Amino acid sequence: MTKLTIVKIGGNVIENEKDLRQFLVQFSKIQGDKILVHGGGKSATSFAKKLGLSPKLVDGRRITDKPNLDIAIMTYAGLLNKNIVAGLQQNSCNAIGLTGADANTIESEKRPVKTIDYGFVGDVKKVNSNNINALISAGFTPVFCALTHNGSGQLLNTNADTIASEIAIAMSSDYEVELMYCFELQGVLTDINDLNSVINQLNAKSYSEFVEQGVISDGMLPKLENCFNALNKGVSNIKIGNTNMISSDSVRCTNIKL
Amino acid sequence: MTKLTIVKIGGNVIENEKDLRQFLVQFSKIQGDKILVHGGGKSATSFAKKLGLSPKLVDGRRITDKPNLDIAIMTYAGLLNKNIVAGLQQNSCNAIGLTGADANTIESEKRPVKTIDYGFVGDVKKVNSNNINALISAGFTPVFCALTHNGSGQLLNTNADTIASEIAIAMSSDYEVELMYCFELQGVLTDINDLNSVINQLNAKSYSEFVEQGVISDGMLPKLENCFNALNKGVSNIKIGNTNMISSDSVRCTNIKL
Repeated sequence: MTKLTIVKIGGNVIENEKDLRQFLVQFSKIQGDKILVHGGGKSATSFAKKLGLSPKLVDGRRITDKPNLDIAIMTYAGLLNKNIVAGLQQNSCNAIGLTGADANTIESEKRPVKTIDYGFVGDVKKVNSNNINALISAGFTPVFCALTHNGSGQLLNTNADTIASEIAIAMSSDYEVELMYCFELQGVLTDINDLNSVINQLNAKSYSEFVEQGVISDGMLPKLENCFNALNKGVSNIKIGNTNMISSDSVRCTNIKL
Repeated sequence: MTKLTIVKIGGNVIENEKDLRQFLVQFSKIQGDKILVHGGGKSATSFAKKLGLSPKLVDGRRITDKPNLDIAIMTYAGLLNKNIVAGLQQNSCNAIGLTGADANTIESEKRPVKTIDYGFVGDVKKVNSNNINALISAGFTPVFCALTHNGSGQLLNTNADTIASEIAIAMSSDYEVELMYCFELQGVLTDINDLNSVINQLNAKSYSEFVEQGVISDGMLPKLENCFNALNKGVSNIKIGNTNMISSDSVRCTNIKL
């Protein structure tokens, strides 16, 4: 099968212009078919503040009301996505920026209200891999932001990590998919206070041991649950580390396999 | 040759939610290949005001400085474009939202400074019709907003009327192109105070006579110059009128031919 590389970048890369520029050069050099997924939460928050809106949090979870959805659309699909696309074009990467509504690539449904109403937040229902395939076959590099749609005209805010893993799963029927989650660290740490304590290899067995021992906890748990879910559903290989890992296999990072 | 319909809508349709919704239903029903181009100047202006930015005008021409470019990107490529795309998807039209940077569809260059520096404003240099064709062939309906790029990472603000006519010209080597400019009136008027004084047919000869007599003037002049330029360069047919003309040939509008 043909190889497909999916890279997810978060706020730390996007919000520093120099880091972003450098990343876009690296990303453009990836051989073969590729997809970029980006978040951008901090940009939206700081922009909302400028407009006098405060982020709505319930039990520490961000609530997306209508004004905050509009801001997400403006920053994610507008400012961030389009500047990334223009930056990739500068590096001869024929990028095309997308929300899940564009080319009907990602359908979602508003998260059901149990104890919390998250507002305009969508859980992925279906990734239309045939439409993403059509774009890739036409020579384009899809660049997804963290927005999906419900098919009834409503855009919805969706976690970028989840978008990346759901796309990876859907594409794995046609491709050998490698998924790379870039963040500020070199990988998953055994000691949060020691940046050198990177776990080089994680599999389902060692992961559950680390969780049992309390070595891996908090924010890394949903990220890694996402990873193992993707591996179980056909994704070949997942890496977590900083952006340098996309340029070279010798850069330290956490390799995750089943 | 296959027929391609290109529709350009302006601020008056976009800024009224009910009108926009109705238009998207009409547009979705157009048979065959189609492209939508939208402006959105008023949204950007009112949004800039919210942020405490005043529009910069020199000699009555809008200047696009960096903050105003960012606002254009957020409103045109973000809020307006993505809501239009989601609305078309709702009507089973497989829309894909684009700036000229996306899929490298429209390259431009920063307008040269003569007496006025327009800032981040781009004049169209090249429409890459092969990339637009690839999207249409894959079954997508391109939805363009009023932004282009210079190929060196810079997004530029570009007049939506011009984008529509430049796309129409570029696509006319592969398609029989009909271009429709929708605005608030039923067509070009002979008397600005009489909404019924619509000119049904305009050709190069009658146009120059109307201009000589001072019947057509002001804002309609650049619009119509755009039209005749497009017709001279291969576009088959151009109509100017309100959005109802896209649903039926019997709706009154101004038909422009060479």
